[in-house]
Amino acid sequence: MIKVNGDVKKITTLDEIRQSKDIVEIEGAVHKLRDMGGFCFILVRTLNQVVQVVWDIDGSGDYKCHEGDWVKIKGSVVEDKRSKLGFEIHGKEINVVSKAKSLSPVPINKGKVNLHMDNHLKHRPAVLRNPSVRAIYKIQEGICRGFREYLTSQSFTEFHSPKIVAQGAEGGANIFKLEYFDKMAFLAQSPQFYKQAMVPVFGRVFEVGPVFRAEKHDTSRHLNEYTSLDFEMGFIDSFYDIMNMEAAMLKYTFELLGREYKEELELLKVELPSTENIPAIKFHEAKELIAEKFNRPIRTYKDLEPDEERLLGKWAMEEHGTPFVFVTHYPSQTRPFYTMDDPENTDVTLSFDLLLNGLEITTGGQRINDYDMQIEKMQKLQMDMEEFESYLMTHKYGTPPHGGLGLGLERLTMQLIGLDNIRYSTLFPRDINHLIP
Amino acid sequence: MIKVNGDVKKITTLDEIRQSKDIVEIEGAVHKLRDMGGFCFILVRTLNQVVQVVWDIDGSGDYKCHEGDWVKIKGSVVEDKRSKLGFEIHGKEINVVSKAKSLSPVPINKGKVNLHMDNHLKHRPAVLRNPSVRAIYKIQEGICRGFREYLTSQSFTEFHSPKIVAQGAEGGANIFKLEYFDKMAFLAQSPQFYKQAMVPVFGRVFEVGPVFRAEKHDTSRHLNEYTSLDFEMGFIDSFYDIMNMEAAMLKYTFELLGREYKEELELLKVELPSTENIPAIKFHEAKELIAEKFNRPIRTYKDLEPDEERLLGKWAMEEHGTPFVFVTHYPSQTRPFYTMDDPENTDVTLSFDLLLNGLEITTGGQRINDYDMQIEKMQKLQMDMEEFESYLMTHKYGTPPHGGLGLGLERLTMQLIGLDNIRYSTLFPRDINHLIP
Repeated sequence: MIKVNGDVKKITTLDEIRQSKDIVEIEGAVHKLRDMGGFCFILVRTLNQVVQVVWDIDGSGDYKCHEGDWVKIKGSVVEDKRSKLGFEIHGKEINVVSKAKSLSPVPINKGKVNLHMDNHLKHRPAVLRNPSVRAIYKIQEGICRGFREYLTSQSFTEFHSPKIVAQGAEGGANIFKLEYFDKMAFLAQSPQFYKQAMVPVFGRVFEVGPVFRAEKHDTSRHLNEYTSLDFEMGFIDSFYDIMNMEAAMLKYTFELLGREYKEELELLKVELPSTENIPAIKFHEAKELIAEKFNRPIRTYKDLEPDEERLLGKWAMEEHGTPFVFVTHYPSQTRPFYTMDDPENTDVTLSFDLLLNGLEITTGGQRINDYDMQIEKMQKLQMDMEEFESYLMTHKYGTPPHGGLGLGLERLTMQLIGLDNIRYSTLFPRDINHLIP
Repeated sequence: MIKVNGDVKKITTLDEIRQSKDIVEIEGAVHKLRDMGGFCFILVRTLNQVVQVVWDIDGSGDYKCHEGDWVKIKGSVVEDKRSKLGFEIHGKEINVVSKAKSLSPVPINKGKVNLHMDNHLKHRPAVLRNPSVRAIYKIQEGICRGFREYLTSQSFTEFHSPKIVAQGAEGGANIFKLEYFDKMAFLAQSPQFYKQAMVPVFGRVFEVGPVFRAEKHDTSRHLNEYTSLDFEMGFIDSFYDIMNMEAAMLKYTFELLGREYKEELELLKVELPSTENIPAIKFHEAKELIAEKFNRPIRTYKDLEPDEERLLGKWAMEEHGTPFVFVTHYPSQTRPFYTMDDPENTDVTLSFDLLLNGLEITTGGQRINDYDMQIEKMQKLQMDMEEFESYLMTHKYGTPPHGGLGLGLERLTMQLIGLDNIRYSTLFPRDINHLIP
């Protein structure tokens, strides 16, 4: 009988290959073949880099492999200062372990992918193999790691909340409906109610998971499904505790990226922003500042318009030398029923957005923790209390002062890398026109 | 203008409190009040432990707080060998930061929660505060951490796939339907197609996320939504590479739990199983073995029946001293179209399940990587090739030999801790009767 003991095959790192004096074996896709007459270059796309192999074809013209095939190549490591990696491999043996059926119709082995959006998205399974494209999602992985690692170090506990729910957390009509056996259900717009329920359990909690918004508009910054990085923390003294936690998390994350995702950052020419001295400006002051500074009439006091966010980002960079800006104290009217009003002025809330390069990437704030206060606000909004019986248990049986935020992973990735459409920072985007792949 | 700089409030650890010579402040919920005449014990439920505070009431009978309230208490640390933590706090000052409206109708401060399932689930936001209940989800967090940390150390890349999809990966009718604007869409039964698409991108990938199964049966081991720990790895030499990776991941995870989740394991009296020498037995042999050993007729060769899984677990423990057993080579008929058949006997597949204490917790296997082979199998199954055009791009443009698995987080938690219903290892379970909370 076979016994399984966890003897795993290790991946040889590039550093190990570089330092090897013996014959090494590399595995990867045949990224590009370049005939040099008498010999050829085989560029092999490994897990994290493209490695150059020199292959002697003895005038036979036989490369032993084709672009797109997956190969194992044995050879010796030869220092080569001209190569980006500092070495190349002189191939001795090629073993094709899996053949491609066709050449990719989209450029996998070019520096840039210049495709019309629809064509790009249609061919995602091929386009993603392009090193510049895959680097985006490697950096995205790093952002998630940073978020989790930092919060774990700060005594946060990770949890998983259901995505099929009986009611929306954000209100409004932007919610997907679902047949759930003989009932009607919805897809969660956010883990809000569950995060709050978890505060009296673990004190500090976070979740990384999908959220769903049935918004019909088709813009460069909206998706109908995205990955939300959510946290919620108890025992706050003020809602600035939440903003500080976010700034500290971002600092940790950018340091992690700088340390472990260097090659991807270089490939995409990303400069990591500083998280020091992020200005926090009140919503109404921001409105007036933009109006005055950029000579622009205020059209609504409900929310910041996309153009106002953009100009505010410009202001933050010019005046404070940072691409980040917190906007605080949003109007009570436009924030959800669980938001804590400012006791000094109940027309505004103890809430905030964080903008990066002029685009909102986070919404957060302090929540109501007192049961009577929450009931009163819900009554004022004529909400059906019975429907929220389960949600209100959190307050009824006691919960500490708390608050939290939701950070859009794809938006942060897009703004950090400087992409012009959120579909370019989403592996398989969902919008009104795209459900495949 | 306020500047945000990431100055976060640190959580004082129990070790820091224990060693403190000064006045300390602890934060938490009033877990239990015990009047001792002249003084009282206030048990404070902090983020991770229950701390005992001695509070002098001077005969006034005023505890200054009620059960369920959230408090900050200042006091001095006094060694106490009788206490589980080795110390108690002599309180000097109590500050109620948030009041409870009512006492919990379910036992938060008892050792065990003995409630009827419906009552338990209905009061989840309260029940979860019980230390024995919350310990389950702390351990669950540790399982996720182990999965991610180990795979990250093995060059796997984390990714996020959409949950709203155009087609099911597992086939069959057990899929939730969704109105997606003017189209029909589904909720993903697994990230299978996306995992496979990511293999030629990053070589080794994983995802932790929700999956949805519209199964109508109401059993102690099924949920309609659960958290799936999925990985997929390229460049395998055989499907045993996948099983070895899982065994190594579990080993790492149990070591992490033993190191960092000690208190929770002790509270729940969990013994961590060994992952050494896990037997791997072929499906047909397992069928016959159980029939013979337990004198039980074989009723179907399609799958293992729940009772057969249970008996196989019994056999593994008795004969091999392990609660784990791999079952391999499941019949081709009952495995999905992307499963690789065994070249030596195409009636069976290069696939496996992993059972823990007689329950399947993982399904995995090698996938077809060759385009023509995949097309041939799909044609045999009379599948609509056009519908899978996007999926087949993975094979068409070349992908290495690969395979992977899906591990049910709630099932692993349930079996590890020894719970008798999967609803007790799920924060907010979704089944045919439960959509709230």
